[in-house]
Amino acid sequence: MPKEFHSLIPLDAAKSIVLQHLPAARIASVPLSQAAGSILAEKIVSTIDVPGFSRASMDGFAVQAEDTIEAREDRPISLRLVGRVAMGRLPGVEISSGEAAEVSTGSMIPPGSDAVVMIEHSQAHGDEVQVRRPVYASENIQAAGSDISFGETLLYPGTLLQPREIGVLAALGCQEVPVRMLKVGVASTGDELAPPGQALAAGQIYDINTYTIASAVADCGARPQRYGILPDEKQAMAGALQKMAGDCDLILVSGSTSAGAGDMIYRVMEEMGELIFHGVNLKPGKPTIFGLIEGKPCLGL
Amino acid sequence: MPKEFHSLIPLDAAKSIVLQHLPAARIASVPLSQAAGSILAEKIVSTIDVPGFSRASMDGFAVQAEDTIEAREDRPISLRLVGRVAMGRLPGVEISSGEAAEVSTGSMIPPGSDAVVMIEHSQAHGDEVQVRRPVYASENIQAAGSDISFGETLLYPGTLLQPREIGVLAALGCQEVPVRMLKVGVASTGDELAPPGQALAAGQIYDINTYTIASAVADCGARPQRYGILPDEKQAMAGALQKMAGDCDLILVSGSTSAGAGDMIYRVMEEMGELIFHGVNLKPGKPTIFGLIEGKPCLGL
Repeated sequence: MPKEFHSLIPLDAAKSIVLQHLPAARIASVPLSQAAGSILAEKIVSTIDVPGFSRASMDGFAVQAEDTIEAREDRPISLRLVGRVAMGRLPGVEISSGEAAEVSTGSMIPPGSDAVVMIEHSQAHGDEVQVRRPVYASENIQAAGSDISFGETLLYPGTLLQPREIGVLAALGCQEVPVRMLKVGVASTGDELAPPGQALAAGQIYDINTYTIASAVADCGARPQRYGILPDEKQAMAGALQKMAGDCDLILVSGSTSAGAGDMIYRVMEEMGELIFHGVNLKPGKPTIFGLIEGKPCLGL
Repeated sequence: MPKEFHSLIPLDAAKSIVLQHLPAARIASVPLSQAAGSILAEKIVSTIDVPGFSRASMDGFAVQAEDTIEAREDRPISLRLVGRVAMGRLPGVEISSGEAAEVSTGSMIPPGSDAVVMIEHSQAHGDEVQVRRPVYASENIQAAGSDISFGETLLYPGTLLQPREIGVLAALGCQEVPVRMLKVGVASTGDELAPPGQALAAGQIYDINTYTIASAVADCGARPQRYGILPDEKQAMAGALQKMAGDCDLILVSGSTSAGAGDMIYRVMEEMGELIFHGVNLKPGKPTIFGLIEGKPCLGL
């Protein structure tokens, strides 16, 4: 006859035991373009200022703000246009009082200037620029390091990399990202289960858990590996679990953990591994089982 | 000199124009194991009951509830054990008054029985079962169709497939899932941009948008294709956009849409495609541009 559950342990104790046995994830380096959805493995500290230079945040003309104090819509002031700053280039020009240089959003601010007059408030004619509104010092300029400062801690290990985090890594120029690689083997057990695509025989239902759990594992940033439906036969199950232990860092098996006559995962675990607990004081979830198989943590759900 | 923006249009109008031109996604069939994160393309109506039969929701003994009315801890009633229902099999036994059959969680309920006595409240000795507590009719039985009923509409087109939805599809035995395949070309423009991994020259910053936007596109269930940094040179940009239009259903380009001297995407669009709007009454976002290139919608962010 089937045995009763081993003594039930409280949920907190079960959690703590599982956490103690969690495998240390291997660290892998993946290209930034493939890092989304993974878990960051290391702390990211900025080694650069972003932007690395003061840049125009508007299209217009770099000027000395003081020169524009008197500018009015109906009484524009006139500055001498001394050059144009190309995007992604050194300014190649220096601004003195009475002078202006054309800048585009994102281009470097030439030395000597301290503000940008928006193109909408100015007009160039030949080598002259008419400015119709005053600007204050630093107006329309994004200072070096204002997005990210050198030495700033930006991301912590364990962070799930979503579009925002990918953007931060891109801003630092990271080509490769250190991520945690945790391979999780997922399987279901139970003779009543049929894989998708197969006609159901009497008494059968489709295997839901392998797919749902694998999908949830992927959402957590780990790599699920599906092993489908394990047979409810001790030798075959033992062999399948050994294979999973060989391939994966963690094993999740659903089904076959209650005390019913057809359930044997805990027996396999007792014989070929180490059964750590069987039965959690939780409903549903009471038959949760945890142990080690070939040293790999195995959770029976 | 740079032109001013074309007339600004309200955000609602811009949204409506973009939505009108959105491409019809192609429909592809993908294996269930690869469907997570995609957008469902068709309505899913159940063609089966789940479970397809009444099943035990506890390990124990299938009985006629009426037989157990008098059962007490200190005065168990005795039933004749007439068989055992194997998981995933026809019961192979029928229960009359005074009889019981062993069942496991998930096994079929044998005809004639209408309840399951939990194993914890019973004890089998040879061909006799002692029941220590009464059960009511339907207790510990999950009725056919109680999870999902035949003909029930379960999922609608446009649904992002997350673990829950993957579970529903698995429950129906779907092997292949119809999903929307929308290939989105993502690129940045601007001579000030450098790809990750490359040292920054003066005036350069790293390309953030290609990576952030591609990552957000993938989160929406579409397929991003990265084209990196397009040059701010008209012929080269035109060629790159034509290539993207040939490969993709939708083009997203960031940068190079404001009215600055170095910005030309709208000129390319005017000359080789159709410029639909340039300038949205939105801050930030005013220079948003939208048009068609080789008939493919192209949004400049």
